[in-house]
Amino acid sequence: MFVHPRCVGCVLFAAPETGYHSDVDTGPLRIAILGATGSIGCQALDVITRYPGRFKVQALTAGRNCDLLATQVAAHQPRYVACDEESPALRDAIGAAGARVVPLDNIADADDIDILLVGTAGAAGLIPTMRALSRGLPVAIANKEVLVMAGHLVREAMLEGGGELRPVDSEHSAIWQCLWGEEAHPIRRIVLTASGGAFRDLAPGELDAVTPEQALNHPTWKMGAKITVDSATLMNKGMETIEAMWLFDVPMEAVEVVLHRQSIVHSLVEFADGSVKAQLGYPDMRLPIECALSYPDRMPEPTTPPLDLAAIGSLTFARPDTGRFPCLSLAMEAGAAGGTMPAVMAAADEVAVQRFLDGELVFTAIPRVIEQVMGRHEPAPAPALDAVLDADRWARRAAAEVVT
Amino acid sequence: MFVHPRCVGCVLFAAPETGYHSDVDTGPLRIAILGATGSIGCQALDVITRYPGRFKVQALTAGRNCDLLATQVAAHQPRYVACDEESPALRDAIGAAGARVVPLDNIADADDIDILLVGTAGAAGLIPTMRALSRGLPVAIANKEVLVMAGHLVREAMLEGGGELRPVDSEHSAIWQCLWGEEAHPIRRIVLTASGGAFRDLAPGELDAVTPEQALNHPTWKMGAKITVDSATLMNKGMETIEAMWLFDVPMEAVEVVLHRQSIVHSLVEFADGSVKAQLGYPDMRLPIECALSYPDRMPEPTTPPLDLAAIGSLTFARPDTGRFPCLSLAMEAGAAGGTMPAVMAAADEVAVQRFLDGELVFTAIPRVIEQVMGRHEPAPAPALDAVLDADRWARRAAAEVVT
Repeated sequence: MFVHPRCVGCVLFAAPETGYHSDVDTGPLRIAILGATGSIGCQALDVITRYPGRFKVQALTAGRNCDLLATQVAAHQPRYVACDEESPALRDAIGAAGARVVPLDNIADADDIDILLVGTAGAAGLIPTMRALSRGLPVAIANKEVLVMAGHLVREAMLEGGGELRPVDSEHSAIWQCLWGEEAHPIRRIVLTASGGAFRDLAPGELDAVTPEQALNHPTWKMGAKITVDSATLMNKGMETIEAMWLFDVPMEAVEVVLHRQSIVHSLVEFADGSVKAQLGYPDMRLPIECALSYPDRMPEPTTPPLDLAAIGSLTFARPDTGRFPCLSLAMEAGAAGGTMPAVMAAADEVAVQRFLDGELVFTAIPRVIEQVMGRHEPAPAPALDAVLDADRWARRAAAEVVT
Repeated sequence: MFVHPRCVGCVLFAAPETGYHSDVDTGPLRIAILGATGSIGCQALDVITRYPGRFKVQALTAGRNCDLLATQVAAHQPRYVACDEESPALRDAIGAAGARVVPLDNIADADDIDILLVGTAGAAGLIPTMRALSRGLPVAIANKEVLVMAGHLVREAMLEGGGELRPVDSEHSAIWQCLWGEEAHPIRRIVLTASGGAFRDLAPGELDAVTPEQALNHPTWKMGAKITVDSATLMNKGMETIEAMWLFDVPMEAVEVVLHRQSIVHSLVEFADGSVKAQLGYPDMRLPIECALSYPDRMPEPTTPPLDLAAIGSLTFARPDTGRFPCLSLAMEAGAAGGTMPAVMAAADEVAVQRFLDGELVFTAIPRVIEQVMGRHEPAPAPALDAVLDADRWARRAAAEVVT
């Protein structure tokens, strides 16, 4: 039994009094978007554009896509910009907006930011997330590696600084929404739903031959390349189990995964009395983004048509096949082991997925690489950030060298 | 769009500060149970027995089942008892318990009652419900006719007296649970699930020949005779749509019914942003009873095994067939018409169901009786209690005389 301390300890529930309520006339919510040119970033900007006056884009960051970032800077006139690359168009847009170029890690340090939306992938969002939480800011987090790698540190920063994590994954947003008003009630079980990814219907023998193009064709969600391959291996779901541990303060034994092809039930939570609550909807990432930005409000207009269960007809559920998709078990093992193991697992996965996308590995080698790297790692308990980053680097090197 | 006023207006959400929290050492919650010998009453006593020290049965009432009531009085030692009939065993049990016999309508007047559980059927619970609400007591309500007949008066009593309605129907409890923490968020739509009743798979032509015995064989829920027949005609679901209007302060256009054979999703609510929340579980009335008694807490132990969606495999949904089951439309029409019409509809249904159980009417005549009686009634808007009871009596006479 895992008790959510009321108001203390679980900052997921700390927000109603923090002044981000739209009825309070404090001007627009000033948002810093990390990973603005990615899938989450673009959809966040779409949401923001739908509600003029309610939000202000205060900072935009990107990795390599300077051209799109330049367009976004021109459209949203942020005060701060960070980008790994440069281009004349971006330089012009930044100049025209009167924006300041700042290092990514410092993006959450500005006084005139109310919320950080972390839409990056990999380890990129870790430092800004911790800095924002340490400053007491809410962080809308879609970058699951941040919690997978360093959940204990993120949680520590959050508890010490009074910040707040708001999940942006559809699954965790579902659970978060189901926990509103249930702050005092112990969570017995969290059930994450999984679409099953691109290869859910393939036989074990067919998985060796799948191509990156096939892996990138997700049945229900449109997302970036890395996360789409992670969906096909079920590693994405595995990382979500670790994310759930940290977001909702439950041990791995309390987290389950169920296959749900239709991606309509976004996840479920079971309370001590056996009551189960679920959040449902057509797949559309704008809803979890909206929830994270508007909390404790809900937005006044829907992003999708009304859910028509009779038209859908049937919602199906099945146990995941960890024989075909060992990444799910590997991730849950890493989460249960804790310490540096999840960071090692995530780093090995990132390298293995890139090697698969580059045509160097077959699809079924991805879990084999991760398993070998994890097998060679002795996890350090409660590691400091340096130790996490060391383990990450070690695992990347190790994963690059694994011959499968 | 139907805004739930925050704390004011919708007393469904008024409870957390009222002192019924188990952590507050105020002794056991003192419960008056109306309809103790019925299905809800017996299951409530089962719940109460599972948590000794937490609850105290302060009053028990029954209609004709004095023998069971005598056993309950002996077991629970209430201070107040009401029964329509008498028996030596009951008299002895009351004497041994040192209980006082009081009229049913006065049962909620005692100072030493903390909550009223209304598990009666028909109009019996109306006066005690209104008196309890007028006194500021919470009322756990399973007696849907109370809200169907006089929802506007019950709501008025509740708002004036500061009482609180806590739904005990599984559907409304589901919605109530989904609304915890969503007090400030407009409700766009309420979707009530319906098992479809005993005859959900019969063709229209087969419905004429069904027997009372067949009608009493509900596919998922074990309940009393009247409500089980009402489930078979879908009148029960129709009455629940009216109940939902009053409990959640939404117009009939915001209430929908979807057939869901497995009775696992107990109902759903859609918010303005399109997010849908549902409460799920194996069918077991003890959970809604517990929720209503323990609110704002949840009980520490489950009443059923953990929900296993993978084992269930598939949850199906379909539009209800109002051609085969016209009672659903009749009830929703009565709810939309308002005034005395729902009371007339409910009274006509009660008589028609009894005539069916007595072998006087065929099953398909039940909606025909109701439709004829409704067709002859000109509803009075916002009727006082006397006018409601007059309409009820008129409809009973009219329904008894209808020749189909």
